[in-house]
Amino acid sequence: MPAKRTANIGEYLIRRLHAHGVRHVFGIPGDYVLGFYEQLQHSPLKIINTCDEQGAGFAADAYARVQGLGALCITYCVGGLKVANTTAEAFAEKSPVIVISGAPGVKEREKNPLLHHKVRNFDTQKKVFDELTVASTVLEDPQTAFQEIDRVINAALRYKRPAYIELPRDMVAVPGHPHYRPRAVVETSNPRTLKAALAAAAEMINAARQPVIIADVELHRFGLQEPLVRLAAKTNIPVASTLLGKSVIGEQHPFYLGVYEGAMGREDVRRYVESSDCVILLGAFLTDINLGVFTARLDPARSIYATSEKLSVRYGNYEDVRLQDFLQRLLRAKLRPRRVGRWPQPIKMFPGAPARANVPLTVRRLFECLNAFLAEDTVVVCDVGEALFGAADLFIRRGTDFLGPAYYASMGFAVPACVGVQLANPRSRPLVLVGDGAFQMTGMEISTALRYGLNPIVVVLNNRGFGTERPMQDGPYNDVAPWQYHRVPEVLGGGRGFLVRTETELGEALAAAAKHKESYCLLEVLLDPNDHSPALQRLTQRLARKI
Amino acid sequence: MPAKRTANIGEYLIRRLHAHGVRHVFGIPGDYVLGFYEQLQHSPLKIINTCDEQGAGFAADAYARVQGLGALCITYCVGGLKVANTTAEAFAEKSPVIVISGAPGVKEREKNPLLHHKVRNFDTQKKVFDELTVASTVLEDPQTAFQEIDRVINAALRYKRPAYIELPRDMVAVPGHPHYRPRAVVETSNPRTLKAALAAAAEMINAARQPVIIADVELHRFGLQEPLVRLAAKTNIPVASTLLGKSVIGEQHPFYLGVYEGAMGREDVRRYVESSDCVILLGAFLTDINLGVFTARLDPARSIYATSEKLSVRYGNYEDVRLQDFLQRLLRAKLRPRRVGRWPQPIKMFPGAPARANVPLTVRRLFECLNAFLAEDTVVVCDVGEALFGAADLFIRRGTDFLGPAYYASMGFAVPACVGVQLANPRSRPLVLVGDGAFQMTGMEISTALRYGLNPIVVVLNNRGFGTERPMQDGPYNDVAPWQYHRVPEVLGGGRGFLVRTETELGEALAAAAKHKESYCLLEVLLDPNDHSPALQRLTQRLARKI
Repeated sequence: MPAKRTANIGEYLIRRLHAHGVRHVFGIPGDYVLGFYEQLQHSPLKIINTCDEQGAGFAADAYARVQGLGALCITYCVGGLKVANTTAEAFAEKSPVIVISGAPGVKEREKNPLLHHKVRNFDTQKKVFDELTVASTVLEDPQTAFQEIDRVINAALRYKRPAYIELPRDMVAVPGHPHYRPRAVVETSNPRTLKAALAAAAEMINAARQPVIIADVELHRFGLQEPLVRLAAKTNIPVASTLLGKSVIGEQHPFYLGVYEGAMGREDVRRYVESSDCVILLGAFLTDINLGVFTARLDPARSIYATSEKLSVRYGNYEDVRLQDFLQRLLRAKLRPRRVGRWPQPIKMFPGAPARANVPLTVRRLFECLNAFLAEDTVVVCDVGEALFGAADLFIRRGTDFLGPAYYASMGFAVPACVGVQLANPRSRPLVLVGDGAFQMTGMEISTALRYGLNPIVVVLNNRGFGTERPMQDGPYNDVAPWQYHRVPEVLGGGRGFLVRTETELGEALAAAAKHKESYCLLEVLLDPNDHSPALQRLTQRLARKI
Repeated sequence: MPAKRTANIGEYLIRRLHAHGVRHVFGIPGDYVLGFYEQLQHSPLKIINTCDEQGAGFAADAYARVQGLGALCITYCVGGLKVANTTAEAFAEKSPVIVISGAPGVKEREKNPLLHHKVRNFDTQKKVFDELTVASTVLEDPQTAFQEIDRVINAALRYKRPAYIELPRDMVAVPGHPHYRPRAVVETSNPRTLKAALAAAAEMINAARQPVIIADVELHRFGLQEPLVRLAAKTNIPVASTLLGKSVIGEQHPFYLGVYEGAMGREDVRRYVESSDCVILLGAFLTDINLGVFTARLDPARSIYATSEKLSVRYGNYEDVRLQDFLQRLLRAKLRPRRVGRWPQPIKMFPGAPARANVPLTVRRLFECLNAFLAEDTVVVCDVGEALFGAADLFIRRGTDFLGPAYYASMGFAVPACVGVQLANPRSRPLVLVGDGAFQMTGMEISTALRYGLNPIVVVLNNRGFGTERPMQDGPYNDVAPWQYHRVPEVLGGGRGFLVRTETELGEALAAAAKHKESYCLLEVLLDPNDHSPALQRLTQRLARKI
């Protein structure tokens, strides 16, 4: 390539994704996007073909959570509208995914012909994604295309939410503006407001008898785990997390209490948090699940609430203060260190008794054994249901090693997500926990792991139905067809499958999976349909009241 | 139930669906829709649980095409947004599907809390479906709920397009307006315009030397196949169909020419149609694929164009004329009968030579053998790719026995669609033609056929990749992971699988499938990745010019 040649629009898009750390693009081609796929194929970005576009969407979301930015590339409407749900999840749970959609050429759109894949009008897909993203653009003008690409990617990074780029196929190879240069986006807090907020917060914390931090998912998204740990270490204030924010702090940390989720979670954590006279909520989503279906008792009069969107200290709101600035400056504020107190400790959950042969496995024993199995390189990826709610008390060693859609709660996330996780962090080995219902939605994406040489361990919790719904209201509609999940490797032509009925079989399968590192392992674990974790029982009792 | 009790909103919705012929509802439950599922469970409508919501969407679309109305019932956002693409397909190809989504209760929405499954605002999903449907409503007011249900269902039936009903969960059991009675919607043509249009059309047809009818999909959607056949029989004017409208007229009919698709289709049909001095387009979609990627030469000066949205005779447009009225009245107009002429005949495509052992199967031979296999009760359901384009010349005996998404062209349609087809028409046995790429998207929905005792025959055309794209531009992104499709029955615990490499094996597998009527049969047919039907070659050469 001659040094001074102006990049074309496709090249510039690839270059900017690469500059922001993207190394993999997930998707499936189609004729409206083939030209850009050919550019991708000859770029430093690696294309990851999933089985269905939905799988690409979940994988890109998980990749973005680990890497800081993800990218998805699909064709017009028949590809794009298949990722409406995964993009919604990324929006709801703040995951910056760039959705790149091929599209009919600008010239082809004249006179509004009925081109294949069109729904109502040529802008139908764009309008749908306007609802599901934080920024969107159609790159129809070479003069502004580069600027638009940067605007949209910057918005995704600023708000940690997905963004949409539509690339008409006759624009891919068109050069952009030759003199355009990207400008760094600098955003600052209002210094006076920041100072006032800090003073109020410091006073409140110092006056408190028993302050506590609730650390949530935004600290992870904005890369603020390290200041969080320093704040705890400096002040000796203990830290709880939430289900959505689980693993934002490594759970071996001596200041870590466990997951707080109102009356749904551990009683000792609830009591400690709710008896606090100063609850410091950092980057927290006050969702129904995080708040234990609103059983949480958090009084604004006793709270500091700092997120990327809002900052309040007791009843006072402070505008124009960035979460990063608030947390960094809080670290430098005069906060009195406390004596290390007696606070709740995370449950270690190691199996108390040795495995017993021929004893059917229970949910409780399954999680105990999985807990003991977690290794330094394990990343736990959960799907919705018992897999997620039962996993709240797993003991996650390091930060960012637990992923689960604990707010948006879309089933089908975990298996495709593990592909994104392991590509973003090749030193990890994902442990996927997924129910049978969720596996039937997207579980065959384990094929994608096989194709690209990944080696996740997938545990299918087979309780023959939608276990979260049965306790709320049961009927045949909660049944799931009885697949032989452990035989999936026979269809895919690779990987290893295990059928697990007893504690002994679980132990043997996990030991074999730990040794088998060449490809994925799939453990089908048979569970009683009426056996639920205590956490799930509490949750569903509460949720059932609304039906 | 006491005779005079006012129905509640859920009951009324069920009653109206039933009144319009709906007997099955496709979907997956979730907590926001569990209450309505319980009502469905105790209603005359049967719930069909698919593996993923996407499968339910395709199944409901196919059901609507056969039955006249389809229904889908999913939970809020995590279910609803998974069917954005299938609803878009129903919109584009005019299939009346009622999308019923559970949702947070009206009372729960106060103060805009972060309830699980929420994306941006509580109306986000509604806004998305406003783009993809012809009518939409949120049943938040018991006073108007019944009226809204009727308005939305009537719109779907009037326009043959999907509609959206959002059912907040605290509204399901609330009684509606006690004195509301549904009113029949009567729509009429403007009598003077209709008369003028008929006069112009009759004059043009009578003056024509060689008139020809192109019958397309709207005739099927509006139930006008019978007047079409009568028109042909009365006037001796021959009929071509399109790929999207294929089987709108039974292909054994002596007046049937074959599929017209410009230069993409059979040359004799093209020549006959394009040399006509009066092309009568009935219910036609002028899409790129129907028009052979715009190779069709159809001159408005020589055309009568009648659809549900537009009527023109040569350059004159006629407003407010219904397609039904125009066609019915045309039947009664003075049209001179012609002599039965010599026009092209559909290719019979029966295998010329007996099957040869150990000869690898080619695409051409596959379609010849499938053609010979078609029986009276066969309904052919095609997915996108060679499965669809190569099937254009299959000889479909009766009307409505060929389904394929030949305009919107979303991959993944066929396997879930066959579930909808066979439930809507239990006397049929679907023959599903699906590529390996499309099978990996939704093929595991064959599980749903097994679960509900259906017995489709699924032919997987395994050419190891996206065969439609390879001729346009090839790269590793067109490869599909090598599954052992014929071993899928081992995972599902039922059905029969066949591996087919040669003509002999194909003959044996088809014979066995014809006998095995207890469950589905899956034939994995190995094809050379570079072997394409002539139709696909012509299509992709043309499409490749736009990349």
